[in-house]
Amino acid sequence: MSAVSLLADIAGVGRDPHRGGYSRHAFDAAEGELRAWFAEEAARRGLDVETDRNGNLWAWWGTPGPGALVTGSHLDSVPGGGAFDGPLGVVSALDAVKSLRDSGFRPACPLAVVVFLEEEGSRFGVSCLGSRLLTGDLDADKARALRDPDGVTLAEVAARAGFDPASFGRDDAALSRIGRFIELHVEQGRGLIDLDAPVAVGSTVIEHGRWRFSFTGQGNHAGATLIADRRDPMLPAASLVAAARRLAAGVAGARATIGRLVPRPGGTNVIASTVDVWLDARVAGDGNTRPLVEEIAEAAKLAAAEEGCAVTVTEESYAGAVAFDAGLRDSLTGALRPVLGEVPLLPTGAGHDAAILGGHVPSGMVYVRNPTGISHAPEEFAEDADVARGAAALATVLKDLST
Amino acid sequence: MSAVSLLADIAGVGRDPHRGGYSRHAFDAAEGELRAWFAEEAARRGLDVETDRNGNLWAWWGTPGPGALVTGSHLDSVPGGGAFDGPLGVVSALDAVKSLRDSGFRPACPLAVVVFLEEEGSRFGVSCLGSRLLTGDLDADKARALRDPDGVTLAEVAARAGFDPASFGRDDAALSRIGRFIELHVEQGRGLIDLDAPVAVGSTVIEHGRWRFSFTGQGNHAGATLIADRRDPMLPAASLVAAARRLAAGVAGARATIGRLVPRPGGTNVIASTVDVWLDARVAGDGNTRPLVEEIAEAAKLAAAEEGCAVTVTEESYAGAVAFDAGLRDSLTGALRPVLGEVPLLPTGAGHDAAILGGHVPSGMVYVRNPTGISHAPEEFAEDADVARGAAALATVLKDLST
Repeated sequence: MSAVSLLADIAGVGRDPHRGGYSRHAFDAAEGELRAWFAEEAARRGLDVETDRNGNLWAWWGTPGPGALVTGSHLDSVPGGGAFDGPLGVVSALDAVKSLRDSGFRPACPLAVVVFLEEEGSRFGVSCLGSRLLTGDLDADKARALRDPDGVTLAEVAARAGFDPASFGRDDAALSRIGRFIELHVEQGRGLIDLDAPVAVGSTVIEHGRWRFSFTGQGNHAGATLIADRRDPMLPAASLVAAARRLAAGVAGARATIGRLVPRPGGTNVIASTVDVWLDARVAGDGNTRPLVEEIAEAAKLAAAEEGCAVTVTEESYAGAVAFDAGLRDSLTGALRPVLGEVPLLPTGAGHDAAILGGHVPSGMVYVRNPTGISHAPEEFAEDADVARGAAALATVLKDLST
Repeated sequence: MSAVSLLADIAGVGRDPHRGGYSRHAFDAAEGELRAWFAEEAARRGLDVETDRNGNLWAWWGTPGPGALVTGSHLDSVPGGGAFDGPLGVVSALDAVKSLRDSGFRPACPLAVVVFLEEEGSRFGVSCLGSRLLTGDLDADKARALRDPDGVTLAEVAARAGFDPASFGRDDAALSRIGRFIELHVEQGRGLIDLDAPVAVGSTVIEHGRWRFSFTGQGNHAGATLIADRRDPMLPAASLVAAARRLAAGVAGARATIGRLVPRPGGTNVIASTVDVWLDARVAGDGNTRPLVEEIAEAAKLAAAEEGCAVTVTEESYAGAVAFDAGLRDSLTGALRPVLGEVPLLPTGAGHDAAILGGHVPSGMVYVRNPTGISHAPEEFAEDADVARGAAALATVLKDLST
């Protein structure tokens, strides 16, 4: 089955009737269905499937061991996300492995397809959850205590889904087997549209992080409380939204986004008592993100004080700028040159498991064109022809790197 | 059982572990438990319990019929609300009826205790749902089509709970029986604190309504989308919050509140595609609320246009200013004078079923002091002594009006 057919195969799993698109989150029903589907498809291709200590799935061609060439991505989505972000890398990997096997190729090293847990961080707030646990970038105790929007911890949710949260944490055995890691991913911006190219090789991943602003005021009655008597945390929350945009617009290469904002209790006729706001901030270059967030936080603190409210700011995740391994990057472009000509190098503002892995093992990325330029939304897209080109490109580089 | 004991009896029903306080909404489990509890307590006091066509509960002392003296309130809450808003009027009514019966008093007219459906409008967006349906102030077809936050219609929810939504609508039979309606309610502001009095009689209810602003932009990736390429509906939504405060602060007696704001899809690393914002607006005087909302809507439209977003504004409910029946008001203060001395008259910024009923039958209100001045929040309170004073005052006026 081709990458296109594999995508069609899971097109009905985890559709979100309210938001449109897909909602597939760690350990929920849709994600469980996708795990089972992946295991079955991998087994059908003669791969040996195992789950590591952190809930990541591995499908092996050859005996698992050091020096393995690993490819893959993730199957979870943002809430109401597109069909390609994550799954495209997984189905392309399955497709590429199958076509190499069918051609009679025998790799000189173990080859594996990996599915990382909760790359989007949509349920527990920390992106690249599976790869950060595997590499030890995220402390296991801190991870186990993460809570989903219903207040349930990752430890509880994992245990209910049949996983052992006690085993979470840096997995040297799994990590030491990875010789090189290649992630294929749909592009999430307009780079390949502008370059008029179907495929690119990743150069850098922008520095990024997530910060939670918790504003506290005094919940009260919307009709009986005079304006002068209010301490309404929605006011500084709104100021934060405006300040994040204003301050980011003044910094070259900066993005600041507030896509999640939760007033509590959340009643129409109720002045909120608390408002939680999540800031996603990313700035080009090295070390520029936290200073921008500090400026934004200063504005939020001033606005909170003006309304008689309090605010706390928590860094929920942070990842420095990543330049992908130069040698591997050159190998990728070199392998693709004979079939695709000169393949462009593309920086990205999106985070990826490959950027987390890149701190520990040589890692690289291959991007496939997205004709809408839109991602994390139902409009995210890749043409069938480009999906096929991407899978073929991945097969080409896997063959080149394992010969 | 006294009003204080009756409140203690339901203190465990519908607690909200996330928000604090209580979440009791139309046809949910907690509200169902409270209905059953009310029916049992009323029956224990020898009252005949019936449910009307709109889901309101009635407990009759004497044969139901025209000229009845009716008292009561509601048992639902805002999300994370206090223990007194609604239940205080119901338990005080049960207490007052019991003490009148125990004293050997025989009323000269039928007497009834009523529990109105979904006064807060927290589940289906329209406040005073039961009383508006009963009086015909809310069209039954419009009501049946109202949707809760999960997108389920009132008709579906009511049917699942064993009610017949086809019977919803103006109930002339039920309405024609009400001679006068008295609602006892915890005060939701600081009026009685400032007056240093435990009980007041209601004078007016402020004009008020609810408007939904739906902003639409382009959902996209928080990292890969440059600031210049964004159409982010959170920006005009934040402007709306700021404009509502700024414009309301400039109008005497105005309140404007945004306590509910829902970005979709609601992911941290996702630029929202839509943001729904609910505005609760109330202005003293007559006919001043809609002009304020129009000003606020103009500001929201400008902000939306600046960001390349669209916005629609929907009036979800509206109720004009109400002055309670002057004759009944004087009867209430006259009845209370011998026991409490001169009882203050109190205007309120909160809406009540008594204000809806007041458009059809002589209606009045009795307020009980709230020492925190806070309502629609867990801090809402009434001292036991004031609860007892309120129930005694209600018994006094019921006796006076049915002699």
